[in-house]
Amino acid sequence: MKSINVGILGFGTVGSGVVKILRDKKAFLTEKTGMEINVKSICDKDITSKRNVSVEKSLLTRDASDIINDPQIDILVELMGGVEPAAGYITEALNKGKNIVTANKALLAQEGQRLFTLSRDRGKSIYFEASVGAGIPIIKALREGLIANKFNSIYGILNGTSNFVLSRMSADNCSFAKALQEAKDKGFAESNPSLDIDGIDSAHKLILLAYLCFGRYVDIKDVYIEGISRVSSADISYALELGFQIKLLAVVKKEGDALEVRVHPAFIPKQNLLASVNGVNNAICASCDLVGELLFYGPGAGQFSAASAVVADIVDLTQDIKAGLFRPAFNIVADKSIKRLRKADEFESRYYIRLTAVDRPGVLAKISGVLAKYGISIASVTQKQRMKAQVVPIVMVIHEAREKELRAALNVIDHMDAIKERSVVIRIEDV
Amino acid sequence: MKSINVGILGFGTVGSGVVKILRDKKAFLTEKTGMEINVKSICDKDITSKRNVSVEKSLLTRDASDIINDPQIDILVELMGGVEPAAGYITEALNKGKNIVTANKALLAQEGQRLFTLSRDRGKSIYFEASVGAGIPIIKALREGLIANKFNSIYGILNGTSNFVLSRMSADNCSFAKALQEAKDKGFAESNPSLDIDGIDSAHKLILLAYLCFGRYVDIKDVYIEGISRVSSADISYALELGFQIKLLAVVKKEGDALEVRVHPAFIPKQNLLASVNGVNNAICASCDLVGELLFYGPGAGQFSAASAVVADIVDLTQDIKAGLFRPAFNIVADKSIKRLRKADEFESRYYIRLTAVDRPGVLAKISGVLAKYGISIASVTQKQRMKAQVVPIVMVIHEAREKELRAALNVIDHMDAIKERSVVIRIEDV
Repeated sequence: MKSINVGILGFGTVGSGVVKILRDKKAFLTEKTGMEINVKSICDKDITSKRNVSVEKSLLTRDASDIINDPQIDILVELMGGVEPAAGYITEALNKGKNIVTANKALLAQEGQRLFTLSRDRGKSIYFEASVGAGIPIIKALREGLIANKFNSIYGILNGTSNFVLSRMSADNCSFAKALQEAKDKGFAESNPSLDIDGIDSAHKLILLAYLCFGRYVDIKDVYIEGISRVSSADISYALELGFQIKLLAVVKKEGDALEVRVHPAFIPKQNLLASVNGVNNAICASCDLVGELLFYGPGAGQFSAASAVVADIVDLTQDIKAGLFRPAFNIVADKSIKRLRKADEFESRYYIRLTAVDRPGVLAKISGVLAKYGISIASVTQKQRMKAQVVPIVMVIHEAREKELRAALNVIDHMDAIKERSVVIRIEDV
Repeated sequence: MKSINVGILGFGTVGSGVVKILRDKKAFLTEKTGMEINVKSICDKDITSKRNVSVEKSLLTRDASDIINDPQIDILVELMGGVEPAAGYITEALNKGKNIVTANKALLAQEGQRLFTLSRDRGKSIYFEASVGAGIPIIKALREGLIANKFNSIYGILNGTSNFVLSRMSADNCSFAKALQEAKDKGFAESNPSLDIDGIDSAHKLILLAYLCFGRYVDIKDVYIEGISRVSSADISYALELGFQIKLLAVVKKEGDALEVRVHPAFIPKQNLLASVNGVNNAICASCDLVGELLFYGPGAGQFSAASAVVADIVDLTQDIKAGLFRPAFNIVADKSIKRLRKADEFESRYYIRLTAVDRPGVLAKISGVLAKYGISIASVTQKQRMKAQVVPIVMVIHEAREKELRAALNVIDHMDAIKERSVVIRIEDV
């Protein structure tokens, strides 16, 4: 039987999960694939701490070149995270004729275009199932299962930590700070959770989905990104009252000849499946020409969820290697009808707006007047009474409007004497 | 460039959809796969009716052997439906060294084990993505994406017609007959919709999922099957009142050393994602050891949804053929911890029960007494008042019970003088 040697860079949570699966399920995987998969070498800067899998000392190294330069290693599995030195190691490994498996969305969002080109030139593959939605086999579904389709849009809940925080706020009406602390206590959020909470991690994943579905590598500076830190428990309650759930949504969508790529909190109608995605779960809703609307749902984080995806990639590569097959087979094809990226100014949607205003006659009339001047039409408005006297929240839902006009109107409104805080604006997505 | 010739058996809805995609998207698919896919021959007993794709007359034949015996045809695509003569044609084609793509769940449920064994012996593949969930890439996800996982259970809404009927009944509180007529009018249901409504089609698909996930081919006579024709609009209303939706559920589930395989209507808690699957959509909820709970959702029917899956299978085969690779690669491995199939008597769940009783004192006490005698404990009971005097519905929810005791108790209750109709029993599934 042919055996395949794997070298692993990064012996952290996911790395040790992968090693554990490849060892505990060795016979099972061999029976399924007809190949033997061996972990030949593991590199980490820390090779002394105990993991939940024990390995012979001889497999461990602190020097990545022990893997990169080992001609017996067929597949390099990169699970270090971060852009450098990971990108450099992958480059070297491709040049040495290795296939790559990675879970590193930050790296692929930044260096992917170069690395995919290099891998094609070298006749090798980079597989990256674990980089989006952890164990949900979304990459395979989009790349292979839906290969005959052209895509209209992808709407995703791609960050487990943010979704956990918003779900907690919604279920218990607790504050953002309290929900985030709970996420940290449970080990979902990093001590510096900015990548998650500020939407950056979702944007990295979205860039990969946009590449797969539309064949276009979008620079992160061209992604409109807004995090969830300004979402208050008041917004969550108003959302529920109005029949919505708030989710951090990642959207890539074709509109005419333009592609819209954005990450931001959004009101989702509660009857929509995405509104029921709670906790650290992820979901990806794809709309495509032949099949229509599909949804893929599952845990977006977790040691074995991500490791399951990494192992599936390794298995796919074993088959490619056995066959001498190079599978960009599943070439990414650019959607030639897309000529440009849409600027945030052009986005159109319905909106939820929360203003904090002095409670005196005529304020609402003034606000409505400004909106009307910019051609923005109000669907509903509620002036909430509060105990603390003079300052009241005004909650509005407005009909479909263009971001440009809305921002201009709010700029005027936010400078009115009667307005005491910057307005909160959340898009309403009728996914 | 290498080109692959495809022969298609069955030029009906899905067949013509496949031909249309392979023609309209030829350049797109060639760019993606590096291979040219040609439709070389199409066989149907009707080769004169107009389809939504026009093909040269020279491609059409009424004789399947024109395809089976053509050595230039690499892939036989079987879209005729029914067990025979399709099974015979596939057998011959495998013997002639062709790979197979089929959407035929009835055939695979009955003849699959023999055909898969034959295909392995011949070193050829049978791909069948379109047979479950149409365009949802569920087969690929279970077989490849989740290859490292062991499965605990699959819960599926697998039949679009039944789900359409139940959704209509629930949304408009209309009768079963009216909802079914609407399904027929819209072209979702056959003029004889028994396969759909009686749960047979769901059972066929469930047999394939059980095979993929547990490595065991279950005979249809060992599947517990109950259709939706006894579900009344009264049950639908009570379900909503109690916080549930009724769905035709297909379940395969490991319980200790046994496998439970069943299709029946079920109450699903309304906060569960499966409860929100409406219309002709399908959903498959998989629970597995590494990833946890996943859900796959999308249109379970439709010409291009099914055709999308068939084309994805063809594309996968082109790659296998190019590489000379035989991919039972993704061997089905039997879960050796499963020793037997569970009998319906052993099923355990909570239950909804609706009785039709004479409205007189003491009836409820008698019923409760019978249930108690069989060790069955009532969670809630409501005696609904009706205008039409003496006969009233009694709606009960009972705690977890074994089917055997429940059936015995209901057998006694149904024979009581005060009971005027056979009891309606629907399982409550806390998926």
